[in-house]
Amino acid sequence: MNVHGNHGKNRGHESEVRWIISSVIDDLTLSSLNAVNSYLSSVIYVLFIWAECVLYVKKVLVFFASMEWYCYALLGIITALMSFFMDMTVAKLLNAHQWLYRCLKGHHLLQFLCWTLYPACLCALSTSFAHSICPFSAGSGVPEARAILLGMDMPDYLSLSNLFAKLFGLICTLASGSTVFLGKVGPFVHLSVMIEIVYTLVALLIQRAAKGEMLVVASAVGVASCFGAPVSGVLFSIEVMGTHYSVRNYCPCFFAAACGAITFRLLSVCSTDQETIQALFKTSFSSDLPYQPFEIFIFVLLGLFCSILSCIYLFCHRWALRFVKTNKPISRLLATEKSLYSAIVAFLLACFTFYHSAGHFIASELTMKQLLTSLLDDTSWYSVSQNASALPEPQKTFWQAWNPPGKSYFQTLGFFITAKVGLLVVACTLPLPAGYFMPVFVYGAAVGRLVGEGSAYFLSDGISSAKSLINPGGYALAGAAAFSGAVTHTLSPALLALEMTGQCSHAVPALVATLVSNAVARAKHRPSFYDGISLIKKLPHLPSLIRAYCTLKIMFQYSTMMVLLNEMSLSQSDSLRLWLYHVFYFFPCLPDSPILLGTINKSQLREHLHQHRNEVIEVIMC
Amino acid sequence: MNVHGNHGKNRGHESEVRWIISSVIDDLTLSSLNAVNSYLSSVIYVLFIWAECVLYVKKVLVFFASMEWYCYALLGIITALMSFFMDMTVAKLLNAHQWLYRCLKGHHLLQFLCWTLYPACLCALSTSFAHSICPFSAGSGVPEARAILLGMDMPDYLSLSNLFAKLFGLICTLASGSTVFLGKVGPFVHLSVMIEIVYTLVALLIQRAAKGEMLVVASAVGVASCFGAPVSGVLFSIEVMGTHYSVRNYCPCFFAAACGAITFRLLSVCSTDQETIQALFKTSFSSDLPYQPFEIFIFVLLGLFCSILSCIYLFCHRWALRFVKTNKPISRLLATEKSLYSAIVAFLLACFTFYHSAGHFIASELTMKQLLTSLLDDTSWYSVSQNASALPEPQKTFWQAWNPPGKSYFQTLGFFITAKVGLLVVACTLPLPAGYFMPVFVYGAAVGRLVGEGSAYFLSDGISSAKSLINPGGYALAGAAAFSGAVTHTLSPALLALEMTGQCSHAVPALVATLVSNAVARAKHRPSFYDGISLIKKLPHLPSLIRAYCTLKIMFQYSTMMVLLNEMSLSQSDSLRLWLYHVFYFFPCLPDSPILLGTINKSQLREHLHQHRNEVIEVIMC
Repeated sequence: MNVHGNHGKNRGHESEVRWIISSVIDDLTLSSLNAVNSYLSSVIYVLFIWAECVLYVKKVLVFFASMEWYCYALLGIITALMSFFMDMTVAKLLNAHQWLYRCLKGHHLLQFLCWTLYPACLCALSTSFAHSICPFSAGSGVPEARAILLGMDMPDYLSLSNLFAKLFGLICTLASGSTVFLGKVGPFVHLSVMIEIVYTLVALLIQRAAKGEMLVVASAVGVASCFGAPVSGVLFSIEVMGTHYSVRNYCPCFFAAACGAITFRLLSVCSTDQETIQALFKTSFSSDLPYQPFEIFIFVLLGLFCSILSCIYLFCHRWALRFVKTNKPISRLLATEKSLYSAIVAFLLACFTFYHSAGHFIASELTMKQLLTSLLDDTSWYSVSQNASALPEPQKTFWQAWNPPGKSYFQTLGFFITAKVGLLVVACTLPLPAGYFMPVFVYGAAVGRLVGEGSAYFLSDGISSAKSLINPGGYALAGAAAFSGAVTHTLSPALLALEMTGQCSHAVPALVATLVSNAVARAKHRPSFYDGISLIKKLPHLPSLIRAYCTLKIMFQYSTMMVLLNEMSLSQSDSLRLWLYHVFYFFPCLPDSPILLGTINKSQLREHLHQHRNEVIEVIMC
Repeated sequence: MNVHGNHGKNRGHESEVRWIISSVIDDLTLSSLNAVNSYLSSVIYVLFIWAECVLYVKKVLVFFASMEWYCYALLGIITALMSFFMDMTVAKLLNAHQWLYRCLKGHHLLQFLCWTLYPACLCALSTSFAHSICPFSAGSGVPEARAILLGMDMPDYLSLSNLFAKLFGLICTLASGSTVFLGKVGPFVHLSVMIEIVYTLVALLIQRAAKGEMLVVASAVGVASCFGAPVSGVLFSIEVMGTHYSVRNYCPCFFAAACGAITFRLLSVCSTDQETIQALFKTSFSSDLPYQPFEIFIFVLLGLFCSILSCIYLFCHRWALRFVKTNKPISRLLATEKSLYSAIVAFLLACFTFYHSAGHFIASELTMKQLLTSLLDDTSWYSVSQNASALPEPQKTFWQAWNPPGKSYFQTLGFFITAKVGLLVVACTLPLPAGYFMPVFVYGAAVGRLVGEGSAYFLSDGISSAKSLINPGGYALAGAAAFSGAVTHTLSPALLALEMTGQCSHAVPALVATLVSNAVARAKHRPSFYDGISLIKKLPHLPSLIRAYCTLKIMFQYSTMMVLLNEMSLSQSDSLRLWLYHVFYFFPCLPDSPILLGTINKSQLREHLHQHRNEVIEVIMC
């Protein structure tokens, strides 16, 4: 513009100003046009990309939903990845804590603070995290998953926020280690169900509903990717999840569980120096003579012993849950300050398990994995006690933990079994995401080990002519299967124990002990662990298998007749009733959803209709 | 009487005669009274005993039926006893034949006659025995058991005469050895179902019906007591037996199968010098490094190869069954002279497998157990070929059988795999009681062994840095699981292979190979082995699992709608139709019996009703 200013003064200020203005406007228009142009083009470009994306996403969604089997594989792989990375994180946190604890050796007060504050903080963090994001994420999640499978609508239990709350809460819970003594199986079943629900939503978007099916698959995947045990996952999904199992879910279950288990085990091959795929708690029992035939009787006794202990444990557990709910100070604390309650309970548990209080009687310095590994070891502690100095490293630590100065291993095992019932029950009242299967499994292994060590002690000269020694590791295996089977009223732990240890040599003992313990634990219609939680939480729950056998009374309150009669006119309901009476012997109980709850006898139905005639008519009238 | 004769003649003849007569009468009355007395007392005694017996039997029956769980145990134990004694008898017969064959060494003609006439006679005997007692006892029995579970009424299949016919026929079939190459699993499922039906009859006598349940349990027991594999038995009962599995059968299944399997294995402990319970085909694979992770890809390829072979086998099998039915000379022969047909076919098979014809290319001198043991051996034949003279005894025989002079083991394995398809298909047309699972399992093991030996040969210098050798026994295991899984469209063979060998180290390969082979074999809705037989025999059969997933068209012809509409008036059926449309998304397909066949989509039902409207109305009118 300074260049134009040199054309003399007769042009005058006006023209100059006009010129300036017009040139400015020109410049502006040009630049603005350019800007608008580029803006528009970018908008169009963005729109284009967006449209492309939408189309692509839709294509992906359609592809995703049509490729069901890929989804099953993906479900397995994602759950296994989560399980693996959670294990890794927890191991790192536990190592850090153990390192700090060892550093403080000699300073009892500092060690005490390190030992007690660490789990207290983690539990408080887990509780506050879980409850601030999603208040439904506490607990195991298996009873809720069962209720959903029964057709109950619980959208909050399957939300994405619940997934994250459960994931991070669970890491904190597991990182507090063997002090709090909680596991991860139950939450993983729930997590797997939640991952699966993402797929179901996608499937629903394009009008394909398969909710019930995928839930069963997800529950199998949850177990399989926790332990690398696909077949037990499938069996778990059959027995915990319903009264009727649709065989068309069997193949997807198997496939997804296999994908999950293989991924989980392959990841550990990649991350460690392991050469090939191995079992999670690999044992090296002798396969030539795993046990003498007469030992089967001891295994039967072990099963009986486990079932009695399981009854005590379940009774205490239900009592504790009810006490926490009814006791006013505690329930008020739980209603307002959940984190505080968690911190206090974790602190108390840690005080008890501190090495210089009662901790050295219950091998509290070992993590849960180390506990299980030490209990499943095949050399009997009786023979170790003769020559303890020659032990290699990990076994030496385990031996020292179970055989503290001044105590024998029988005393530690006995005290462990006595004290852990109380500790477990107290830990179960914590309002944080946690699994209750693994603790029970380890506890059962301790019971089995005690029986095994007893047998090895009394028969230390070898059995009969064979001079073969008793293997207490096998008893620990059978005990773990029997106790966890009795607590959950399932038989799959027998197979799970074999798949976890990677050896079939003790298949018969594990099976026998589990069958015996189940028979006793299910007698007199006692509720299982999951049933107990469902009862306390007032969730609709499937009665135990034996009870399902007799009647389906409990089911009735959530079921079908009312739903059916609701939706019909009086004449229709009459004809239905006629039809039910004359055509079927059994009548299928179906709610509005496509999930089959069970069948009911004609005479029972007639009786029920007779009893509730007035209610039915009221329902029909309104 | 001579004493009385001395009293003089005045008594006369009359009195004498009277005296004689009276004394005789006295004697007679006394003796007859005594006789009547004793007779009456014995009758009363018999009546008393009979009444006692009836009361006792009734007590026993009531006790028997109330003690359900004892019955399950008894079912397992009886089946296992039968299985064990059958095995023992068959082994003795086979040994006798082998002894005779060895005695005739040098006399080719006599050896030929011994080799060919023995199976021909046995097969003729088996056929005539089975058909003269019960014509329904031929075949495997699994398709029939499935039809019964579907609710079809087939009383002849579950009669006591069928049980005996099947039992003795099966012994003859098995005794003819690897020439005819048939197994015992299928018939044992059928036998177990028949044993169980005895209990059901007792239960029915005292008004307790539980037919469907016990059938499922029996099928699990059948598999478990053949191989000592309880968990695979349970899985088999789930996947072969129906579309819906009632979870209340799960515990009885597990319990009965465990009883059967443990009894079966304990009996072999008692009878042989075995020290403890071991697996049936115990292997001793290295558990430290069973396989390298990259070998999983070879296992996937093995699964693919097995599935392709299974498709060929199934196609040939169906073709052969149809050919036998449609070819006039053969069908006429089969209709009139079943035994002659069996004898001719067995003779032809024996001619082919005679050592001096083609037998030395297919290791025909080994029995089926020896074949499986030799194929599952963990030392690779490549390394054996370097130093064959140092082998211990059983292995040396196996090695000589697979490596005849002038042929390599690759040629024998290849020829075995090629020839056995034909031989198996021909053997399947024999009208005698026989199982078809075990031959398929052994065939799969041979396929796996070929792939494993190939890998061992090409990677003979060891793999990567580990210098670990490939274990072809593991490939044989995975191949057996994959091939038998593909033929029967089931996944349980993966677990069965592990339970039979007593080692879990190859769990992942077996599972991967079985999943891959199943995926290919089930594609395009191909019928499984059992479906094929059902189709040919025109039995109602459940479609394969995948097909059950899509529609239930095949089911329709035996199912529900017609049954339902039959039993209703027009107005009722209308209201039913209304009700079905509006209340349920899925409609349960229930026949007259209390067994659930499956579910059907609302839209499909509507469509079907629309198509068959005229039929329906006709049905209602008549």
